[in-house]
Amino acid sequence: MTLIGPSLMCADMGVLKESVIILDQAGVDFFHLDVMDGSFVPNFTMGPDMIKSIRPYTKKPFDVHLMVKNPENHLSTFIEAGADMISVHTEATEHLQRTLQTIRDNGLRAGVALNPSTPIEELKYVLDVVDYITVMTVNPGFAGQKFIPLMYQKLSDLKDMLFKEGYNINIQVDGNIGYETIPGVLENGANMLVCGTSSLFKPDITFEEAVTNLRQFIEHNNTSNFEPNLI
Amino acid sequence: MTLIGPSLMCADMGVLKESVIILDQAGVDFFHLDVMDGSFVPNFTMGPDMIKSIRPYTKKPFDVHLMVKNPENHLSTFIEAGADMISVHTEATEHLQRTLQTIRDNGLRAGVALNPSTPIEELKYVLDVVDYITVMTVNPGFAGQKFIPLMYQKLSDLKDMLFKEGYNINIQVDGNIGYETIPGVLENGANMLVCGTSSLFKPDITFEEAVTNLRQFIEHNNTSNFEPNLI
Amino acid sequence: MTLIGPSLMCADMGVLKESVIILDQAGVDFFHLDVMDGSFVPNFTMGPDMIKSIRPYTKKPFDVHLMVKNPENHLSTFIEAGADMISVHTEATEHLQRTLQTIRDNGLRAGVALNPSTPIEELKYVLDVVDYITVMTVNPGFAGQKFIPLMYQKLSDLKDMLFKEGYNINIQVDGNIGYETIPGVLENGANMLVCGTSSLFKPDITFEEAVTNLRQFIEHNNTSNFEPNLI
Amino acid sequence: MTLIGPSLMCADMGVLKESVIILDQAGVDFFHLDVMDGSFVPNFTMGPDMIKSIRPYTKKPFDVHLMVKNPENHLSTFIEAGADMISVHTEATEHLQRTLQTIRDNGLRAGVALNPSTPIEELKYVLDVVDYITVMTVNPGFAGQKFIPLMYQKLSDLKDMLFKEGYNINIQVDGNIGYETIPGVLENGANMLVCGTSSLFKPDITFEEAVTNLRQFIEHNNTSNFEPNLI
Amino acid sequence: MTLIGPSLMCADMGVLKESVIILDQAGVDFFHLDVMDGSFVPNFTMGPDMIKSIRPYTKKPFDVHLMVKNPENHLSTFIEAGADMISVHTEATEHLQRTLQTIRDNGLRAGVALNPSTPIEELKYVLDVVDYITVMTVNPGFAGQKFIPLMYQKLSDLKDMLFKEGYNINIQVDGNIGYETIPGVLENGANMLVCGTSSLFKPDITFEEAVTNLRQFIEHNNTSNFEPNLI
Amino acid sequence: MTLIGPSLMCADMGVLKESVIILDQAGVDFFHLDVMDGSFVPNFTMGPDMIKSIRPYTKKPFDVHLMVKNPENHLSTFIEAGADMISVHTEATEHLQRTLQTIRDNGLRAGVALNPSTPIEELKYVLDVVDYITVMTVNPGFAGQKFIPLMYQKLSDLKDMLFKEGYNINIQVDGNIGYETIPGVLENGANMLVCGTSSLFKPDITFEEAVTNLRQFIEHNNTSNFEPNLI
Repeated sequence: MTLIGPSLMCADMGVLKESVIILDQAGVDFFHLDVMDGSFVPNFTMGPDMIKSIRPYTKKPFDVHLMVKNPENHLSTFIEAGADMISVHTEATEHLQRTLQTIRDNGLRAGVALNPSTPIEELKYVLDVVDYITVMTVNPGFAGQKFIPLMYQKLSDLKDMLFKEGYNINIQVDGNIGYETIPGVLENGANMLVCGTSSLFKPDITFEEAVTNLRQFIEHNNTSNFEPNLI
Repeated sequence: MTLIGPSLMCADMGVLKESVIILDQAGVDFFHLDVMDGSFVPNFTMGPDMIKSIRPYTKKPFDVHLMVKNPENHLSTFIEAGADMISVHTEATEHLQRTLQTIRDNGLRAGVALNPSTPIEELKYVLDVVDYITVMTVNPGFAGQKFIPLMYQKLSDLKDMLFKEGYNINIQVDGNIGYETIPGVLENGANMLVCGTSSLFKPDITFEEAVTNLRQFIEHNNTSNFEPNLI
Repeated sequence: MTLIGPSLMCADMGVLKESVIILDQAGVDFFHLDVMDGSFVPNFTMGPDMIKSIRPYTKKPFDVHLMVKNPENHLSTFIEAGADMISVHTEATEHLQRTLQTIRDNGLRAGVALNPSTPIEELKYVLDVVDYITVMTVNPGFAGQKFIPLMYQKLSDLKDMLFKEGYNINIQVDGNIGYETIPGVLENGANMLVCGTSSLFKPDITFEEAVTNLRQFIEHNNTSNFEPNLI
Repeated sequence: MTLIGPSLMCADMGVLKESVIILDQAGVDFFHLDVMDGSFVPNFTMGPDMIKSIRPYTKKPFDVHLMVKNPENHLSTFIEAGADMISVHTEATEHLQRTLQTIRDNGLRAGVALNPSTPIEELKYVLDVVDYITVMTVNPGFAGQKFIPLMYQKLSDLKDMLFKEGYNINIQVDGNIGYETIPGVLENGANMLVCGTSSLFKPDITFEEAVTNLRQFIEHNNTSNFEPNLI
Repeated sequence: MTLIGPSLMCADMGVLKESVIILDQAGVDFFHLDVMDGSFVPNFTMGPDMIKSIRPYTKKPFDVHLMVKNPENHLSTFIEAGADMISVHTEATEHLQRTLQTIRDNGLRAGVALNPSTPIEELKYVLDVVDYITVMTVNPGFAGQKFIPLMYQKLSDLKDMLFKEGYNINIQVDGNIGYETIPGVLENGANMLVCGTSSLFKPDITFEEAVTNLRQFIEHNNTSNFEPNLI
Repeated sequence: MTLIGPSLMCADMGVLKESVIILDQAGVDFFHLDVMDGSFVPNFTMGPDMIKSIRPYTKKPFDVHLMVKNPENHLSTFIEAGADMISVHTEATEHLQRTLQTIRDNGLRAGVALNPSTPIEELKYVLDVVDYITVMTVNPGFAGQKFIPLMYQKLSDLKDMLFKEGYNINIQVDGNIGYETIPGVLENGANMLVCGTSSLFKPDITFEEAVTNLRQFIEHNNTSNFEPNLI
């Protein structure tokens, strides 16, 4: 099975409540919320108050992706705002183990995100405190970028490492995930898709149609038997 | 005359488009948009995409308040997103003159914001490139904080300095601006009020009533003849 | 009256408990504890555990001087360790008002410290949340440095500013405070002396003699009628 | 053989001289001194003056563990204070090779410390300038934390890497090293134990008893033939 | 009298030795060397080796302007390279007094530079360790920028402050100093001119002509009796 | 074949134009230009204006080595100045993939430089956007340092990795490359030599003789069949 979640950064941010309700009904599995600090990535997006304001309109998990330096300083803010899952970047903290452990100690799922150039060896000694790994398949910071082909190999290497080390950890992909790239990411181990302008947020079809199309496409292309255990 | 502008950070962020339309019709003079970086202030709020998404629904000026370090790196992002006015913190940049000049060179109004403890002497040599000065009347970063009484004196000192140096620059106040504090800030020179939970965003009345009440209250309390020249 | 307090950085740190007990009996008014971070100043000294370990042996106030960047992140650590007074450097934080207010909200006395070059104008808008001002009379970071003569004028300017603004705030001096400099600092307004190797920690006399000598010297030289209100 | 050294951060810091003398007589092999900067780790502990003050009371090596950013800026301070060994964190410097080489050029033993999440690949190209490797078995910054089980594997991986690359380098473990964890760390290659509240600093027995008990326990559990070559 | 010095950043950097020799013969009073770090200002220029390479070809003073963060870390490098005068930015260091004192202790002249927006109050408590003050009359970082008119007032304010405080300190101006701006800066107190593309480095005349023209122009326009005491 | 390029940091910087012309005629393959920021490395050297000033005097490629933090902020400056190749340090940026891609998108060759301690695993997921890899064989920042022997193994490991992953990427070595070290670096895979005081810049022979000698020595010692594909 493959989980799909809209990247709310790609939604019309003037009518977020409405988008959340329709996306929920359309059957997405989780909501992906990118927080940026203008320093780890050169952009800004949203904060805890925005997350709070839409929290009541769905029961699906909120997956908060902290694209910020020193994420350990901001965990409590997003936990209070209603996050169910929080991912932090390994490049952004000197205390990855403590940060992930803290997320878990608060009853949330803990994720690690990797920039495109970051080697997967960085994860070896935190695998026991990680619920999902986010492989950035574009450079983080902006919507609408192009998939980096070498990320297929990275996914494959990651899948191998997880198998070899004996961990059942979900693999999320984030960045230009659409009909051209989904077969490849599924084949190489991804089981959680962050969906933006390349798949869910399309001008000419409804969210319901977009989700249905996506589900069907995934079913036909998914040769993986790597089951997500997250939700 | 006194300009009033809602702090959109205090709005229901799930229905921003709707809030903007109603606030516009209710007669606010400008919209105040706080951008935070988690480092200059320990919070996050919104970014350029959110500003773009609500830009079409009002012609009133968008006043973007950059509570971020090194604001010079982010000006173009917010100019493209539709800002009409941008204010930066003097504490956040080593190149205040260049930053203000750049804002103006792009056809926007340039503002300087001061944290509560920051002395007004910091402004003396940029007065010729400043359109408005934002006196933070609470510590920046969160809604719902308490007005710092010494800020009345700071406003008064600022008004005196502007008079002495011969500049006609608007004075904006930001933080816990409500019925208890408005008489004092007006008396001491403020002519632009950033309005949040203390005045405009109140659970039991409509935006229209809130704006009407506020206008009347201001009219009765405004002993100043310091005219805003900004809008 | 003039308060005197030993700078524990100058004590024999192998026998701190004993030094604290003897200094307490010798009649000092407070204990001054310098915390350094290797970044705001190029040295390291002590931390909360050391403060906790000597806390039981005196009832005199512990005055913790945070020579660290972003002191707002470390307040709770030192409050829990037993501080009664905490001073922070105006150069080290962008949120001086909030930091001082937080110290006071926890029931402690709040101090501001100024590096030698820092102008006193920095203090104007926090005077209502300050209990004492520490004028560094040497460059901070190391014991055994030479008093900077221009600091007499700075003290005098500060005294004038406090009088003019109507605040009764204690003035502490820190750095090479000994028999040569005490007359000058007292004359210019200081009423709290941080005493190190120039006055209290001298190889050839006991702490008791040192305190007695110092008290007598101060009495003969103190032409000020600026009463400390802190302890 | 296995070397044991007390973590002086866990001692009563009011009577350090006495503790050092008794620990020396009790037969510890080295003294471990943690220096923190409030930035690399969120705590402060001690500095060069404290190290100097206890230096005369033992001839055992002083092992200074710099939990600080940019340790290269502080080496001379701690060399002058009497360090015999200095370890720096690979996460804290961009110039690890130069820093280790400098420590050695001054006649000291050079160590590298690794946070729990840090991969051992970081060490591969400095192995020829390293005398000991400190595997943090808890997240650094505070006493009393819980051992991270995955660190057993890290030790084992490290032992394998050193064997494969042909280096005879001591492996130090730091963090919750006590009767429950010692068998595991010894089995996986550690030969230098930093001993804190889990083993040496216990309220109900003397240092002498604690050291004796520890030595006996180690002897019965040490299946390793990995000899320390450091002292 | 007024001192003039070429800004070597404006010279042809491929033939610096030749330029230095000709400028020396043309009669300049000092050489101004801008060092940039890409962080305090967004550019890079030159370093100690370049300064060393041209040092033998003139006996005129080398005035090194450190447009870098934490200049205290780089003083010895530039002292060894042959600097006679070093100026540092007040915005770039938390320890201005110590930095200036260190420059003087090494037998050099110590200068402070101010960005356009920086208030002159920053200088009040270092006036006794300052030999010259550099008023940036453009935003630092690049050649060819436009003079900021408010800097005339800043110069005038600075002259008044120096007179009032009783200090005879040279006032240097740096940025777009040419025939249009020289009368104004001289009238307002400047007595050291850093000369770049607006006056000395002109495509159609020789350095000798440029210096001669400049001297005559200064003589006719200098209404000041503020004598430089530096060289 | 092996490419050789002078490190202009080692040239007489007072007569750079002349040195460039002679070196060009002597037959070097490229020019290596080190830019330093005083922060990533503790030195300063040159900037874009110096590069521009010598650009007209050779058609050989300019290889700009950015030893600076956040090199992504400075790319356009050096592209405009005339760089043909730009290398950035993996330790200096959190966005290595984007930075390399940007260099290539501007039509330049993209390089990655590694400090001595940095593992080659850092490169695995950017190999498709890299034209050359610079192995620092001394610690960066200064001329005249000693070759680190373990770098032979690093080169060999890198050669193996490139072969295994199937990439034909040039390997540059930088630091103490002379007659003693050239056989070893060639044997282990280097095909681009940055030549400084150890080979090209020698007091007693001309550049022409130096280049001729070097070419002959390389020819006799080059057992590699690893062809450079860069120029």
